[in-house]
Amino acid sequence: MKGKTAFLVLLLAFVSCSIVFATELSDTVVLHQESIDMIWLILAAVLVFFMQAGFAMVEMGLTRSKNAGNIIMKNLMDFCTGAVVFWAVGWALMYGASAGGLFGTSQFFISAAGSTLFRDWMFQVVFAATAATIVSGAMAERTKFSSYLIYTVFISGLIYPVSGHWIWGGGWLADLGFHDFAGSTVVHSVGGWAAMMGAIILGPRIGKYVKIGNKVSVKAIPGHNIPLASLGVFILWFGWYGFNCGSTLSGTDLSISTVAVTTTLGAAAGAIGAMFISWTHFGKPDISMSLNGALAGLVGITAPTAVVSPTGALIIGLIAGIIVVYSVELFDKVLHIDDPVGAVSVHGVCGLWGTLSVGLFANTDDIKGLFYGGGIHQFSIQLLGAVVVIAWTAATSALLFFLIKKTAGLRVSHKEELTGLDISEHGTESYSGFQIFSNM
Amino acid sequence: MKGKTAFLVLLLAFVSCSIVFATELSDTVVLHQESIDMIWLILAAVLVFFMQAGFAMVEMGLTRSKNAGNIIMKNLMDFCTGAVVFWAVGWALMYGASAGGLFGTSQFFISAAGSTLFRDWMFQVVFAATAATIVSGAMAERTKFSSYLIYTVFISGLIYPVSGHWIWGGGWLADLGFHDFAGSTVVHSVGGWAAMMGAIILGPRIGKYVKIGNKVSVKAIPGHNIPLASLGVFILWFGWYGFNCGSTLSGTDLSISTVAVTTTLGAAAGAIGAMFISWTHFGKPDISMSLNGALAGLVGITAPTAVVSPTGALIIGLIAGIIVVYSVELFDKVLHIDDPVGAVSVHGVCGLWGTLSVGLFANTDDIKGLFYGGGIHQFSIQLLGAVVVIAWTAATSALLFFLIKKTAGLRVSHKEELTGLDISEHGTESYSGFQIFSNM
Amino acid sequence: MKGKTAFLVLLLAFVSCSIVFATELSDTVVLHQESIDMIWLILAAVLVFFMQAGFAMVEMGLTRSKNAGNIIMKNLMDFCTGAVVFWAVGWALMYGASAGGLFGTSQFFISAAGSTLFRDWMFQVVFAATAATIVSGAMAERTKFSSYLIYTVFISGLIYPVSGHWIWGGGWLADLGFHDFAGSTVVHSVGGWAAMMGAIILGPRIGKYVKIGNKVSVKAIPGHNIPLASLGVFILWFGWYGFNCGSTLSGTDLSISTVAVTTTLGAAAGAIGAMFISWTHFGKPDISMSLNGALAGLVGITAPTAVVSPTGALIIGLIAGIIVVYSVELFDKVLHIDDPVGAVSVHGVCGLWGTLSVGLFANTDDIKGLFYGGGIHQFSIQLLGAVVVIAWTAATSALLFFLIKKTAGLRVSHKEELTGLDISEHGTESYSGFQIFSNM
Repeated sequence: MKGKTAFLVLLLAFVSCSIVFATELSDTVVLHQESIDMIWLILAAVLVFFMQAGFAMVEMGLTRSKNAGNIIMKNLMDFCTGAVVFWAVGWALMYGASAGGLFGTSQFFISAAGSTLFRDWMFQVVFAATAATIVSGAMAERTKFSSYLIYTVFISGLIYPVSGHWIWGGGWLADLGFHDFAGSTVVHSVGGWAAMMGAIILGPRIGKYVKIGNKVSVKAIPGHNIPLASLGVFILWFGWYGFNCGSTLSGTDLSISTVAVTTTLGAAAGAIGAMFISWTHFGKPDISMSLNGALAGLVGITAPTAVVSPTGALIIGLIAGIIVVYSVELFDKVLHIDDPVGAVSVHGVCGLWGTLSVGLFANTDDIKGLFYGGGIHQFSIQLLGAVVVIAWTAATSALLFFLIKKTAGLRVSHKEELTGLDISEHGTESYSGFQIFSNM
Repeated sequence: MKGKTAFLVLLLAFVSCSIVFATELSDTVVLHQESIDMIWLILAAVLVFFMQAGFAMVEMGLTRSKNAGNIIMKNLMDFCTGAVVFWAVGWALMYGASAGGLFGTSQFFISAAGSTLFRDWMFQVVFAATAATIVSGAMAERTKFSSYLIYTVFISGLIYPVSGHWIWGGGWLADLGFHDFAGSTVVHSVGGWAAMMGAIILGPRIGKYVKIGNKVSVKAIPGHNIPLASLGVFILWFGWYGFNCGSTLSGTDLSISTVAVTTTLGAAAGAIGAMFISWTHFGKPDISMSLNGALAGLVGITAPTAVVSPTGALIIGLIAGIIVVYSVELFDKVLHIDDPVGAVSVHGVCGLWGTLSVGLFANTDDIKGLFYGGGIHQFSIQLLGAVVVIAWTAATSALLFFLIKKTAGLRVSHKEELTGLDISEHGTESYSGFQIFSNM
Repeated sequence: MKGKTAFLVLLLAFVSCSIVFATELSDTVVLHQESIDMIWLILAAVLVFFMQAGFAMVEMGLTRSKNAGNIIMKNLMDFCTGAVVFWAVGWALMYGASAGGLFGTSQFFISAAGSTLFRDWMFQVVFAATAATIVSGAMAERTKFSSYLIYTVFISGLIYPVSGHWIWGGGWLADLGFHDFAGSTVVHSVGGWAAMMGAIILGPRIGKYVKIGNKVSVKAIPGHNIPLASLGVFILWFGWYGFNCGSTLSGTDLSISTVAVTTTLGAAAGAIGAMFISWTHFGKPDISMSLNGALAGLVGITAPTAVVSPTGALIIGLIAGIIVVYSVELFDKVLHIDDPVGAVSVHGVCGLWGTLSVGLFANTDDIKGLFYGGGIHQFSIQLLGAVVVIAWTAATSALLFFLIKKTAGLRVSHKEELTGLDISEHGTESYSGFQIFSNM
């Protein structure tokens, strides 16, 4: 019997060792889970950060050389002030403990934060800055720099986080089942429709719409640096993989590749759609329309990217590319709202389209769109959410721009606008030494 | 005996728990393997995607300002159409079930795809688009845009995937032991030699080669934006780390760092080699030659990157940098083939060199080159594969360009070429407001 | 008793299987650890590599168009020669077996390297190249290209690795407890103070400081391409996430997110600080000062990034942004040291500030700064290390520049400088076709 007892003791020792070993192993595996999420989200955030450069190049390239430096300053400063504001209050309003699903109320100054909260803040701050940047595009070439600094603080710190809370912060739209994977509404629609209110309240650039008798003559004001604008589009597309794929919020969510594929095909189809429509309409394939078509496709696919098939993505992108051409024409030729870069059409209109497209093309176990047998249910929710967020954004941003207009003033003087904002606002030329003709 | 039985039951319980626990742990570890591969390949793909911007900037910077927008449109659209075509048929021809080692026959429209196939497609589509982009460089400043759209579809959807199948899709060259780690032949040689056929069939730009009596006077047509071209080279080098390191196809293949080191040293040596040769020949260190030298080093190291030592990489890159200067001179001054950016020399000639260098410098257990005691065996296979793929590419692309030339027409009119393709093909100026002199 | 024996045997079999299984699992988990570190460090290195493009664009944009191509060549070549030199000797001096804490003595040509050493070399080589690049900024527009090639080899291969060894290679400053997480001193201070010695020994650009009677008239020489300079700043900021976050040296160090957050807030505050100070002083928010402010914030936060709170980061960045404006004014208006891009102020002065700030704001269990109850202890060490490295750098680089000046010559001729280095050193124009006015 002694041999047997010894054997049992040995066995027990083995098992104990095995358990200790497994526990250590388990701790390591848990650390790996955290690490994979960490490096994935930080790298995705870094890609999204780089989109700031993309926005700057697009906006600069599609406007006149005399305002190039001013556009840089605005794009740089909306990120810088936005980061500080989103640290102080934005994050708290968006992701703090919910007050009845309407806004967050805790974690101001991301206090008591550990590595996970820091990680999540890092991924979110680069989104917050995007919304404000979009607005600058539609208001380019005539906005007072100091007033820009004021309103960018309110967009990043108040308007964006509140509607963001509704959808991504566990608020009332999230409860309803509203689906906006990476932010067609949360980011782009908010940016785009705030941009529209800004462009309206600001008024068009001098010489853009000239009344001749009863008719309004619409002048095209071409951008001064198409190469940089195109570089900007490539940078945006590049960064958009961080924007969309990173929105899995975990590095072990294997739908990352689905998102990458649908994002690629949506963008590609958007560019193709816009190119052919512009070809049909203007007789030639238009460069800036095609570039905006790629962006339109990207904005469109941003909400549905994780829940549609490659074919669905192609159709969504193609329609976005078609929409953007007509929309740009509508705002410019019919409504006479002066949006130098097409920001309202790309981000506002296609943000709306992308949000609605979830209700049409979604095909997962959880979410089924109209075309896949899900009936009108999801579409209704998408429509409701999209409209409510547009209303919130339009109302608050209109109030904001109106108040600034009545107090600090929103627009530079006639003379400053003609001189260009680089000289008048910053005392610098952007292209010292180059011979440049004024085109007003 | 009761105590002993109880003890045994307890022990059994422990062991069972331990096994259940280990199984769960094991599942998590498997998920981590998939996740590490996923984020590695998607991020690598994103880096390779960004190379599209690099190609656009290089090509644009090294040509004239009047064609800058057209070059953007071509680079944007070859990716967009390429992505759609590679989704529909390209992937299937390259990676579908093999028909006798010649081409793939299944997975059209990447149907029945799960997250792994989506991931692999994403990594491959960015390679497919590269080949077509290379061609656009050699044919810049005179190709009809509509015809460009036609041939880019055939390159991405047919020519590239078929030879790609031979090497990467499990085809007959793979069976022979042909080694092309990241695509010196699969991507660059295909792009480069198709580019040569295009440049020949298209003919030189107006004024490039002028016959004076019996002699041909060769005119240099300088690029309009060296800063953007250099930015493009930096972007390409940056993205090349995704291209080469990502070609491990797994995030847990620790040869990633070997690839990174040899890629770095190959590129560096290429730039140094080209700089010194241009210094010797032209009396001054030439900027665009040095930039092309870096690219030549990168193209050269692409095939052997995983199987050579740092010293081997340095030598391969240095030789590539030397080759590219002589090759550019040869094509321009002797053969009078007008290749505005040196695409044939960088991608075609150095792609061939890189492929052959595997047979000389490889030093692993599996593959040994001539200089490491492997004899002529591997070199012969590399030579065979390289020549066959060049023949395939040259023949099919020549046929393609010839057919387009005879039907839709390959080249813009004399007047359109003089005006510049931005105005004539797209109705836009790229640098509105800038005073620019025509240099023809 | 037979049943019991059978049971015990079965149990033993279970346990054995379980152990084998756990061992295999354990091997996989170890591989995952290596893989996560591998992809993290390689991707971080790739981001840091891209900073080379950022430096090139900033330096080019802030100088005159006639020297743009020369600046590209220098930035390209300092990386290419630096990589080769750091492979041959730099790594060995910095990370080889320590000779009394003063310099490394083994691993020349990174011989006997495996995947881990290759990985670490890859991450370090991109840092080494940064120091040399910084110097080129302060010496822009008048340095002989051939002499540049000489001194860049000595900076990357000797000056940088030796002081680097003291801090990161396990040398005497590391032993003292000097803390420089990502290189405020190791990289930026070394680059910045070598840059100052270079600018002094080289002398100012023609026409920069003109003596009129007893007074020196200081001429502003504006940069020719602010859009590219701004793109460069965005690229630098983008790459800096690799620089700082990658300096965790492991993908499973969860302080990655802390570093990302403090880096973001430090940079943002730097830009804001510089903008407001320039606004106060010059009456308008200055563009290049604000851009340099972002870089100043980044340089400042580089040393303390892992040991300070978000609030600490904000303060450190803000102060860096304020310092940089006064420092640029001091060097230009008072000391008359001609530094075309402000490299000495951004990298040297703010590198010093960032290093000292560790001794003030650090708040971890290991390191406590003055403001968090740590007394003067850490600050003293930081001050000592910073001063010794500055002394080492200033002395060796002064000697180096002096020797070059007396032998090969450091500066181009008066005529070459007026013509511009693109034509005189490389025989090329950077903007062929554009009408450009000389501003000397």
